[in-house]
Amino acid sequence: MQAPDELRAAFEDHLATVRFHPDLGGLEESVRYAIAGGGKRIRPVVCLATAEAAGGTIEDALAAATALELVHTFSLVHDDLPAMDDDDERRGRPSTHIAFGEAVGILAGDALLAEALRISLAYPSPAVALELVSATVGMIGGQFLDIASADVDLAVLHRLKTGRLFAAAVGLGLTTARLPEDRQLPWRSFGDELGLLFQAVDDVLDGDGYAERLGVDAARQVAIAAAGRAKASLTAAGGDTGVLVQIVDELVHRTT
Amino acid sequence: MQAPDELRAAFEDHLATVRFHPDLGGLEESVRYAIAGGGKRIRPVVCLATAEAAGGTIEDALAAATALELVHTFSLVHDDLPAMDDDDERRGRPSTHIAFGEAVGILAGDALLAEALRISLAYPSPAVALELVSATVGMIGGQFLDIASADVDLAVLHRLKTGRLFAAAVGLGLTTARLPEDRQLPWRSFGDELGLLFQAVDDVLDGDGYAERLGVDAARQVAIAAAGRAKASLTAAGGDTGVLVQIVDELVHRTT
Repeated sequence: MQAPDELRAAFEDHLATVRFHPDLGGLEESVRYAIAGGGKRIRPVVCLATAEAAGGTIEDALAAATALELVHTFSLVHDDLPAMDDDDERRGRPSTHIAFGEAVGILAGDALLAEALRISLAYPSPAVALELVSATVGMIGGQFLDIASADVDLAVLHRLKTGRLFAAAVGLGLTTARLPEDRQLPWRSFGDELGLLFQAVDDVLDGDGYAERLGVDAARQVAIAAAGRAKASLTAAGGDTGVLVQIVDELVHRTT
Repeated sequence: MQAPDELRAAFEDHLATVRFHPDLGGLEESVRYAIAGGGKRIRPVVCLATAEAAGGTIEDALAAATALELVHTFSLVHDDLPAMDDDDERRGRPSTHIAFGEAVGILAGDALLAEALRISLAYPSPAVALELVSATVGMIGGQFLDIASADVDLAVLHRLKTGRLFAAAVGLGLTTARLPEDRQLPWRSFGDELGLLFQAVDDVLDGDGYAERLGVDAARQVAIAAAGRAKASLTAAGGDTGVLVQIVDELVHRTT
């Protein structure tokens, strides 16, 4: 079993070798810029750790983890656009549309989504691509809720906007590990709780969402409760889930 | 064999029954608005006609034709955005971002692309999705060329921006008809010529592209030559290609 930092390093190594479709031409520069933004690579690390814990290999999961991170990056690039969140910076660097112009920002996001799905189709079975695209649709539905509704149910919003990709991180790990569906339920519950945990901590750090609605202390309790249920799900799942427990603990205590 | 108008009617009937992913929620309204914009449905009609000419059935090709039209619609919705072509109207109606706001326009385009790929994954083999997503990446690369390069090679630009989806219309028809790859070459040449034909006529009608570079008469000659090669490819392909010949003739003589 590899520790989260080792998985992160393995993922970065793999990401550096990914070849994009030559038809992208000059657009590839902005696509790579968006991906290189760093970030914690939480979703791909969860995907790789889940694959290993469920009896699969990191090698088999790397393409799925890459596709997932590209979908996440696509969502950030479009989220940052002036008509959306209008963020000029992302992780201390100019946002993609600031660095390359707004039109290229739109196209770079489109390309990231299309390339993600192309990469997910490298598997012999369409199951990986189907899991990824369904999660993507859910995330887009969540983004719509976020901009369209003033008094949206936060649980519904988070389950879509953040939760779907976290659930997919776990689901893609299981799929690439070929874990039979009748054994997936506790793992998938883990994925759902992980997404809630991530978002509640995010809200505490950003002072919005649950922190704004319930107060910081109550939002932190939401996160701690989700972490507890996540760990209980891992125990129910069986397997060698120590690395995933470590990821849960890191997510509870993260400060950035 | 069904005539082009019958295929168009069959496609519209099918499109009306397509169910989008429930996670889209309120975003579905803008997605359906964009799709309902009418248009000539040329790509899905070509897909259905090709499937039938190559020995397949319209029923088997309808999902692929739908996915293709959603990708085309996605490209129009994003193309119309202020940072791109900034078009307030599309086929006599307000563009999607005018009708629903720019943020929803961006998300509706994203959702159209994701749903297209989800629908293309309904086939047991990933071949349909792979053909569609590769064409999509090429089209996006073409859009980038279009906005980024002042003196771009028109043939390269058209082959990507318009050609890839026309080629996919034919390719998806062949794939759903399960025509063996070693018999696909003349069909695929037909698809390439069809894209060039469509674009050259478009340029004549709009007074840009080939019409601007070469003059209207020369641009019309480009279209007529492509139509001739398209028909020759159909002859080489064999099969009952009368409907496709009819589509070629309609494309040469279209006035809108």
